[in-house]
Amino acid sequence: MEETEPQITQQDLIEALREGDAVLARELLPQLHDADLAAAYEALRGEPAAALLTLLPEERLAGFITQLPLTDAEEILVALPDDRLAKVLDDIPDDILVDVIQEMPAEYRGHAFHLLSETRRKAARELLKFQDDSAGGRMTTAFASVRENMTIREAIEALRGIAEETEILSRIYVVDEEGLLLGKIRLRDLTFNRRSTHIAELNDHDTRAVLANSDQEKAVRMMMKYDMLALPVLDEDGRLLGVITHDDALDIQQEETTEDIELQSGISGENTDETYLNTTVFNQVRRRIGWIISLAFIGLISGTVMYSYQGQISGLFALTIYLPMIVASGGNTGGQAATMVVRAMSLGELDAGAILRVAWKELRVGLIMGGIVASAMILQIYFMKPANIQIPHQLLTGFAGTVGLALMIQITSSTLIGALLPLGARAIRLDPAVIASPAITTIVDATGLLIYLNLARAILPL
Amino acid sequence: MEETEPQITQQDLIEALREGDAVLARELLPQLHDADLAAAYEALRGEPAAALLTLLPEERLAGFITQLPLTDAEEILVALPDDRLAKVLDDIPDDILVDVIQEMPAEYRGHAFHLLSETRRKAARELLKFQDDSAGGRMTTAFASVRENMTIREAIEALRGIAEETEILSRIYVVDEEGLLLGKIRLRDLTFNRRSTHIAELNDHDTRAVLANSDQEKAVRMMMKYDMLALPVLDEDGRLLGVITHDDALDIQQEETTEDIELQSGISGENTDETYLNTTVFNQVRRRIGWIISLAFIGLISGTVMYSYQGQISGLFALTIYLPMIVASGGNTGGQAATMVVRAMSLGELDAGAILRVAWKELRVGLIMGGIVASAMILQIYFMKPANIQIPHQLLTGFAGTVGLALMIQITSSTLIGALLPLGARAIRLDPAVIASPAITTIVDATGLLIYLNLARAILPL
Repeated sequence: MEETEPQITQQDLIEALREGDAVLARELLPQLHDADLAAAYEALRGEPAAALLTLLPEERLAGFITQLPLTDAEEILVALPDDRLAKVLDDIPDDILVDVIQEMPAEYRGHAFHLLSETRRKAARELLKFQDDSAGGRMTTAFASVRENMTIREAIEALRGIAEETEILSRIYVVDEEGLLLGKIRLRDLTFNRRSTHIAELNDHDTRAVLANSDQEKAVRMMMKYDMLALPVLDEDGRLLGVITHDDALDIQQEETTEDIELQSGISGENTDETYLNTTVFNQVRRRIGWIISLAFIGLISGTVMYSYQGQISGLFALTIYLPMIVASGGNTGGQAATMVVRAMSLGELDAGAILRVAWKELRVGLIMGGIVASAMILQIYFMKPANIQIPHQLLTGFAGTVGLALMIQITSSTLIGALLPLGARAIRLDPAVIASPAITTIVDATGLLIYLNLARAILPL
Repeated sequence: MEETEPQITQQDLIEALREGDAVLARELLPQLHDADLAAAYEALRGEPAAALLTLLPEERLAGFITQLPLTDAEEILVALPDDRLAKVLDDIPDDILVDVIQEMPAEYRGHAFHLLSETRRKAARELLKFQDDSAGGRMTTAFASVRENMTIREAIEALRGIAEETEILSRIYVVDEEGLLLGKIRLRDLTFNRRSTHIAELNDHDTRAVLANSDQEKAVRMMMKYDMLALPVLDEDGRLLGVITHDDALDIQQEETTEDIELQSGISGENTDETYLNTTVFNQVRRRIGWIISLAFIGLISGTVMYSYQGQISGLFALTIYLPMIVASGGNTGGQAATMVVRAMSLGELDAGAILRVAWKELRVGLIMGGIVASAMILQIYFMKPANIQIPHQLLTGFAGTVGLALMIQITSSTLIGALLPLGARAIRLDPAVIASPAITTIVDATGLLIYLNLARAILPL
């Protein structure tokens, strides 16, 4: 890598700005991509970041802002004088324009709208109709389209004007006079065929698309499945409204995964496009405290269970040696099962009918893992016991049996609970990932104590 | 969506095959994408899947196989007669060809190689040099390139032959006579300029690329940062070897995230491209038992800690009511912190110097969350207490103090442990995600018991 990257990196810019070397920084700018400038801005913050802003040539501002997290983009924009703001707003891609306007304070939005050109305003209004996380909310309206009855020569003329503007020209959509999607042609078809050829002859009649109000996740799954460079987005009547491009697909996939991962660890609320280090402590606490405090109170159930078995625990205090392990084995296996199932669901692998197959698979996995751990612990009890644990000799077999049986039942039931709860969540239309691992752990903490201490009561003469 | 998708879906095919209606199935085939056929094959398995194979027209076999998980692709291929195998091997993209050959039994690989055409064999040998998860292992060698001194007319002539073959023609790389990457042009530049223009005039001199032995994750991060449609892959001398395309980027991102998610739940080993339902129970157990059995033994440490505080627990058995909750609060907060940090690391947000900033942020998060949970529990103790818990009145303040202080210390220390362990893992060149949440939970189980029971010994007269 090192050898092939351009010699100048964002790190050089960061250092120049940190040292306050404006001359060097200004020299570096033309050699860096907008994405590098944005990354440097994010890493710097404060004074040196402000310096970067003042050094930035006018014509790069829009490109730079496009690469920033929305909160920072908005902050910079609202501080601009109207003439510069109007220019930047006109230069950033329409999908980002809409996001950034929504980020602005309500009273400022009308003002920003007012600064847009007529056509941009119309495009933005169109996009604002859709939810942030819908296909319509993610699409760009800057796509290329041609009519079926054009020749290649006419199509090239029609496209020439927008060649630089459209995000992607590799897919050119074929529409009828109403704007209904009829298929697509590829730019290569225009390049490598006689100029008198009609578009209709080249049309591939591929009308795979999503509706504008579909979930963005669905759009990405479709693009992945069919290896699509861009996905058309239609209104209810089949009219082509915009496209989701390959780079949006990567962004959406990353956002959705981050959301899943965070939900599963009991972290709630929106994940912004800010970096972890740039979030505030307050924001972190706000997103994390909810589950922690709820689970703490639910955790008192386990405590109450434990408290109510005073007789068994005091009667054979050696029971406590295996107690945390039995309880935790449930959390660990349940968490694994939940992870497998939630991931399979987010990859679209499990339909509603899969519940029995999942249960049957995880039942067997749980029984085998339970059997292995139980056997290991029974052996451990027999081999390690006499040294330093006070178990009356006549209780040893019962004790080992209690631990082994408790492990079997706890691991098998936890595996099933972990696998089935996310499926159950989906059945009642919750995001399966809200069945966070901490929640499963807290549930099987209580069941584990009940299983172990009830078995102790039944098997051992305490 | 429903309205815009072609009327025929993979579900129709699945049902036709399940009902053994070969006539209907054969009619549906031409209207379905190879990816749909592959999805149907995966969902069906067994008899009906075999029926699908026999119905599949010869010329679609390669496209169909390209869409299958490798294990299934390999299974089908080795069962083919040599002449059909040779044809299919020649028709599938070179990056998948190599993967599928590697999936074959060792003794069969030479045979498959022997069936390849001379040029394909050379390309495959070239690709086989690179690790599966390296940029070289993921690239395709089917890219378009032109020389700087060609005119557009010459370039179009040169490209005409490969127009259909290359995966992507939107990016055409400019190379010198040695194959060194000089930049790229876009197909639109060829289409919208005079045919006598020289390529050198259109070259954008963008040589951003990765080395073939770079990690595939690095390639995707670069493609995301710069919104690249395709990323050139170079050898150590800067020669262009291949490209990673946008659809590979989505696949890689998905694989890497699945790997991270699974590692963090204590699921080890390679994740194949098979669906969850199609994996065997044995395979699941093999990937999941390792951490479970290790953590079970480590969990005995917690048990031993608990056992050694018999005096305190027996002295005031009400301590057990808060014990599981205090212990679990550590696991929950530590898991959250680890999730935040591991995710930030996999998004490339945290460099080695970030450790102090992470520690400072998480210390404050931990203290605030600890303070909140501790206050809530102290209130709970005062309000709920008298009813059904046996705590001598003169011990109440000490008891509440013990629980509150233990929560503060446990939550703060667990948050720090969860945040710093993944950074530590990376420092010793381990994947941060191996610091699985279950491992953190098991560690802070023991520390939580030590904190709580030591405080009880120090504060309460037991």
